[in-house]
Amino acid sequence: MPPLRIGLIGAGRIGQVHAATIAQRVRSARILAVADANEGAACACAEQHNIPIVSTEPERLIADPNLDAVLICSPTDTHAAYIELAAQAGKHIFCEKPIALTLEATDRALAAVSRAGVKLQVGFNRRFDPSFERLRRAIAAGEIGELHLLRITSRDPAPPPPDYVKASGGLFLDMAIHDFDMARYLSGSEIEEVYALGAARIDPTISDAGDIDTALITLRFANGAFGAIDNSRKSIYGYDQRAEAFGSLGAAEVLNHYPNQVILSNAAGIHRDQPLHFFMQRYLESYQREIEAFIRAVLSNELPPVTGADGRAALAVALAAQRSLAERRPVRVAEVSQ
Amino acid sequence: MPPLRIGLIGAGRIGQVHAATIAQRVRSARILAVADANEGAACACAEQHNIPIVSTEPERLIADPNLDAVLICSPTDTHAAYIELAAQAGKHIFCEKPIALTLEATDRALAAVSRAGVKLQVGFNRRFDPSFERLRRAIAAGEIGELHLLRITSRDPAPPPPDYVKASGGLFLDMAIHDFDMARYLSGSEIEEVYALGAARIDPTISDAGDIDTALITLRFANGAFGAIDNSRKSIYGYDQRAEAFGSLGAAEVLNHYPNQVILSNAAGIHRDQPLHFFMQRYLESYQREIEAFIRAVLSNELPPVTGADGRAALAVALAAQRSLAERRPVRVAEVSQ
Amino acid sequence: MPPLRIGLIGAGRIGQVHAATIAQRVRSARILAVADANEGAACACAEQHNIPIVSTEPERLIADPNLDAVLICSPTDTHAAYIELAAQAGKHIFCEKPIALTLEATDRALAAVSRAGVKLQVGFNRRFDPSFERLRRAIAAGEIGELHLLRITSRDPAPPPPDYVKASGGLFLDMAIHDFDMARYLSGSEIEEVYALGAARIDPTISDAGDIDTALITLRFANGAFGAIDNSRKSIYGYDQRAEAFGSLGAAEVLNHYPNQVILSNAAGIHRDQPLHFFMQRYLESYQREIEAFIRAVLSNELPPVTGADGRAALAVALAAQRSLAERRPVRVAEVSQ
Amino acid sequence: MPPLRIGLIGAGRIGQVHAATIAQRVRSARILAVADANEGAACACAEQHNIPIVSTEPERLIADPNLDAVLICSPTDTHAAYIELAAQAGKHIFCEKPIALTLEATDRALAAVSRAGVKLQVGFNRRFDPSFERLRRAIAAGEIGELHLLRITSRDPAPPPPDYVKASGGLFLDMAIHDFDMARYLSGSEIEEVYALGAARIDPTISDAGDIDTALITLRFANGAFGAIDNSRKSIYGYDQRAEAFGSLGAAEVLNHYPNQVILSNAAGIHRDQPLHFFMQRYLESYQREIEAFIRAVLSNELPPVTGADGRAALAVALAAQRSLAERRPVRVAEVSQ
Repeated sequence: MPPLRIGLIGAGRIGQVHAATIAQRVRSARILAVADANEGAACACAEQHNIPIVSTEPERLIADPNLDAVLICSPTDTHAAYIELAAQAGKHIFCEKPIALTLEATDRALAAVSRAGVKLQVGFNRRFDPSFERLRRAIAAGEIGELHLLRITSRDPAPPPPDYVKASGGLFLDMAIHDFDMARYLSGSEIEEVYALGAARIDPTISDAGDIDTALITLRFANGAFGAIDNSRKSIYGYDQRAEAFGSLGAAEVLNHYPNQVILSNAAGIHRDQPLHFFMQRYLESYQREIEAFIRAVLSNELPPVTGADGRAALAVALAAQRSLAERRPVRVAEVSQ
Repeated sequence: MPPLRIGLIGAGRIGQVHAATIAQRVRSARILAVADANEGAACACAEQHNIPIVSTEPERLIADPNLDAVLICSPTDTHAAYIELAAQAGKHIFCEKPIALTLEATDRALAAVSRAGVKLQVGFNRRFDPSFERLRRAIAAGEIGELHLLRITSRDPAPPPPDYVKASGGLFLDMAIHDFDMARYLSGSEIEEVYALGAARIDPTISDAGDIDTALITLRFANGAFGAIDNSRKSIYGYDQRAEAFGSLGAAEVLNHYPNQVILSNAAGIHRDQPLHFFMQRYLESYQREIEAFIRAVLSNELPPVTGADGRAALAVALAAQRSLAERRPVRVAEVSQ
Repeated sequence: MPPLRIGLIGAGRIGQVHAATIAQRVRSARILAVADANEGAACACAEQHNIPIVSTEPERLIADPNLDAVLICSPTDTHAAYIELAAQAGKHIFCEKPIALTLEATDRALAAVSRAGVKLQVGFNRRFDPSFERLRRAIAAGEIGELHLLRITSRDPAPPPPDYVKASGGLFLDMAIHDFDMARYLSGSEIEEVYALGAARIDPTISDAGDIDTALITLRFANGAFGAIDNSRKSIYGYDQRAEAFGSLGAAEVLNHYPNQVILSNAAGIHRDQPLHFFMQRYLESYQREIEAFIRAVLSNELPPVTGADGRAALAVALAAQRSLAERRPVRVAEVSQ
Repeated sequence: MPPLRIGLIGAGRIGQVHAATIAQRVRSARILAVADANEGAACACAEQHNIPIVSTEPERLIADPNLDAVLICSPTDTHAAYIELAAQAGKHIFCEKPIALTLEATDRALAAVSRAGVKLQVGFNRRFDPSFERLRRAIAAGEIGELHLLRITSRDPAPPPPDYVKASGGLFLDMAIHDFDMARYLSGSEIEEVYALGAARIDPTISDAGDIDTALITLRFANGAFGAIDNSRKSIYGYDQRAEAFGSLGAAEVLNHYPNQVILSNAAGIHRDQPLHFFMQRYLESYQREIEAFIRAVLSNELPPVTGADGRAALAVALAAQRSLAERRPVRVAEVSQ
C-alpha cells in the first residue's frame, strides 16, 4: 500500500513534533507539503524534514489534489475553519486539540466532516501513551473493580509565551482539556459536573492576559465516580504527568517517566534526575502511535480512535470549568452543552 | 521527676492503643485508672496493661485526687462533657478527636478548660508521624517555595462497625477530620472554603446510617493554596495515607509505609506486600510521640502542640463539608463558624 | 510469670542498645546488674536504665545468684571466657558475635555450655529484622524456586575507632560475620568455599592496624547456589543493608529502610533523605525481637533460634575468608574447620 | 551528505534488530544489501526492510563496490574471516561481539583492519544505553568519588536454542562478554584478575553442550576496585540489567526499565508489570545510538567509540573466566593474553 500523502498546516512546536515523528518513525505516510503563515517557520520545517512543497497559504495546501489528508497544527482559533475547508476538499483530517474555542464552531466543523464523510481524529495523544493505556486497560478490565475516585496531575515545566497564552483559549481549553479527555478515557464515563478553582500564582503576564496558571478541578462522573485534576503551568522539577484510579478492588496509578533509571546516593541523600522534561520527550512514543492510528483508520476506512465527538465532549467540560471558575459554583456540563 | 499519673476514660480501640503505648514505651507516665461503661472492656484493659484501678464510672475516675491527667477515649458524643468535668476537677486533658459534634459544645468545653487553666491536647496523632512531620518541615522551611496545591489521600482498610458509624458524627467529623487537621498543619494556613462530594459506594449499612463512605473534598486556603482530600472507608490493599504538597520551588510527597522492604519478582511481575494495615500499625510511633508531647507539655507547663483551638478549627471545616455536601455548593467555613 | 533477671556484661555501644531495648520495650525481663571494666560506662548505663547493681567485675556479676541469665556485650576477646564462667554458674547466656576469634576457643565455650545444659543464643540480630525474615520466608517457602544466587550488601556509615578495630578480629570476624550468618540463614545451606578480595581503601589507620575496610567475598553453598557479599566500612550515604536472592522461579530483594517516606522534587531532581543511619536505628526492632526470642527460649526451655553452632559456623567462614585473602585463592571452609 | 551505504551480513536475530533500526530510525544510512547463508532468512529480511540486494554469499556482498560499510551479524565463528575480507575490500566494519572465539583470530582480524585503515566498531551496544551512560558519567565525573566496588547483574529471560549455544563460545564469550565490556566501560579501568563460579542449573541441554547457564564472576581492576558480575540464562521475571558502583563519595545504580510506569494495588499487595522483556525492547534506543555513532565515526573519519581493542580486551577477560572456571582459581588476565 502506498504511503498516505499528508499536508501539514502549522509549523510551530506541535507541527514540528508531528513532522519529525512522521519523517523519522512512520513508514506508512509522507508529509508532502507544509503551510504556515510564518514563511520562515514553514521553510525551516520543510528543510529539516525533506518536505518538497512549502507554502504560506494553508488554503492552497488543502486544495492540493495530491494530498490524502491534512494535519491541522495551526493556532487554535483557526482549527475549525481549516477543518471545514479540508472536509469540503475531501481530505481526511487530523486536528490538534481543541477543535475550536466554542461549541458552535465545533459543531459546524463536525457537521462539515460528517457531510463530507472524511475521517477526523483529534489530537489527544496521551491516550496512546503506554502507561495511560495500561491504566485504562486495568480499569476497563475490572482489575480495580468499580471506579470510585480518579486523580490526574498535569503540570508543565514552564508556562508558554504570553502570545501563545492569549490565543490559547486559556488554561482549561488549552491545557486541562487533555486531562478532561484523559478523565473520560480512563473512566469510560462522561463528566456530568465540574467545580473549578483557579488562580494566577506563577507569572503576572498570565493574569494580565486574563488567564490562570494553577487549577484544581473537581469532577462528578455519570458512573458515580469522583475526579480531581490539578494543573500548574510551572513545575520546577519538570513535566509531571500522573494519574491514579481507585476502586472497589484496588487502585492503579501512573507514575512519571524518567530519562534514565539511575539512582545516586551521596552525603546529601538519595537522588535521581528530573523526569522527562516536557511533552516532546515524555510523549514521544504516543505521538508516533497516535499518527499511526490515524493513518490506519484512513487506510482501512475505520473510525479513528479519538473522534470529533471526543473533542467536543472535552471542550464542553472545559467550558463548564470556565463558568464554574467565573461563578464560583459547581456547573453541570449540560448547562453549557445543550 | 515522678511519672505523670493518668486516668484513661474509654477502653475501646483507641483507648487500648494509648494504654499499650504508655505501658510499653512511655516511661514518663503511668496509667493508674481506667473507666469504661463496658465493665468487661475496662477489666480486660486493666489486666492487660497492669492498671490498678478499674471503674465503670468515668466521673469517679475524674474525681480521683491521685490523678494528674485524663485521656478521653470514650465515644465522641461524651467527649465534651468529660472535658468539662475534668477541667473542673483540675485535671490536664488529652482528648481524642473530635472534641464534640457541634461547635457550641466544643466552645463550652474549651471555655471550661480555659477557666480551669488546665492543659488540653487534641488527638491529632498524625502530626507526630515522622513522614508527615518531615513534609511539614519541608513546607515550613520553604523547600518547595510558596504552596500552590496540597493533596491528601486517606483511605481506611475497612469500614468501622455500623454501631460505631452511628455515633461517630459521620465521615467528615470522624475520619476526614484528621485530614482537615493535616491540611491546616501542613499548609500552615486556615481553610476558608470547602466543596465536598460524597457517596455511599461500599457498604449499604453506611448509607442506611445516613453516612457516606467515599468523599472528595476541595479546599481553598487563606494563603491562596488549593487543597484536595480524598477519602474511602475501604481500601482493599490496606491503609493508604499519603500527601503531596506542590509549590513554586518544588514538590514533596509522603508515600505509604510498609511492614518490610522486600520486593518479589516472578513470572507474574514485580510485587511487594501491602502497606501497614491500619492506624495501629502505621501510626504506632506517632501515638508514642503524641503522648510524650502531652506529658512534656504538662510537666513543663507549656502549651500542648495540638490545642483546643486546633480541634475546633478542624471541626468547623468538617461542618462546612457537611453543609457543602447537603447543599451541593462550596461553603465558606465562616458560614458555619461565626 | 516473673520477668527474667538479667545481668549485662559490657556497657559499650551494643550493651547500651540491649539495655535500652529491655528497659523501654521488653516487659518479660529486667536488667538487675551491669558490669564493665570501665566504671564510668557501667555507672552511666546503670543510671540511664535504672539498673540497681553496678560493678567493674563481670565475674562477680556472673556469680550473683539472683540472676537467671547474662548478656555478654564485652570486647570480643573476652566472650569465650565469660561464656565458660557463666555456663559453670548455671546462667543462660546471650552472647554478642563472634563467640571468639578462634574455633578452639569457640569449641571450649560451646562445650562448657553443653555440659552445663544452659541456653546460649548468639547475637545475630539481623535474623529478627522483618525484611530479612520476610526474605528468608520467601526462599524457604519456595516463592523463588531453587536458589541460584544470593547477594548481600553490608556497608557501615563510618569505620569504628582504631582501638575497636584492633580488638575486633578484623573485618571478616567483626563485620562480615553478620553477613556470613545471613547467607546461611537466607539460603538454608552451609557455605562450602570462600574467595575473598579485600583492601584498605578508606582509612589508613585501618591498614595500619593490619585490617581491611573494603571486601568482596564470593561463596559457594552446599546446595549449589553461589553468593556474593560486599562490605565497606564507610558508606557516605548511610547504612546500606540489602540482599537479593535469585532462583528458578523468581527473585526477592531487601531494600534499605528510611526514617521517612518523603520524596522531594526540585530544580535539581528528585530526592529523599538518607537511609536509617546505623544499626541502632536500622535494627531497632530486630534487637527487641532478638532479646524477646532469647527470653522466650529460656522461659519455655526451648532451643534458642540462633545457636552456638550457628556462631561457630559463621566464624569458620570468616576464618576461611581470612585465609583466602592471605593466600589469594578460594578456600574450602573444611580446610579451617576440621 | 549522502547516506552511508551498508551491507548486512547475517539476517538472524541481531541482524534483524539492526536492519529494523536503520530502516525505521536512522536517516544517515541505508542498507542496500543483505547476505545470509539461509536464503529464506535473507529474503524475509530484505522484504521486510526494503533491502534491494539479497544474497546467500557474504563474500559477494563484501565485494560490492557500491557499499561503504558492512555490519557483521553472522555466527560468531565467522566474524573474524568476514572482518579480514571486508578490511581487504576497504569496507568499514561494524561487527557484533565477540570478534572471535580466540585471541589469535582476533589479532589477525585487527591486524587486517589496521593495515586497511578502515574503521571497526564492535557491538557493545549497552554503552549507548542512556542509563548506563549516565552511570558512566557519574563515575567519570567523580560524583561517587574513587571507585571501590562495581556490581553488574545481567540475566536473560530465557536461554537461547541449543544450536545457538553450541556455536556461541559459551556463556562467558557470548553473554558475559557484554558485562566484561560494561565493567571496563563503567570503571574506566582494565580488569586484571578474574575468579569465576559457574554451573548449569537451568537447562540440561546447556550442560550437555558443555556450557553453563549461571555464573558469578569476581573481578579485580587495575585501579584497585573490585567487581562482581552475576549472570543467568533464565530470569523468569524478564530481562534483568542492573549495575551499581560504590565509591568514596557515594553510590550510583542503574535499575531495570519497564514498559510502563503503572503500579497496581489490590488485595494481594502492590504490583507492577515485568521489566522490558529482552534486549530488543530494553536496548532499542541503544541500538539506534550505537549505529548512529558508527556512521558518524565513518562519515567524519574519527575513531569509533568502541574499538577493536575494546573487543579484544573483553574477550581476554572472558577467556580468563573460562580458565578460572576450569581450574577453580583466580586467573590473571595476563595469563591468557600475553
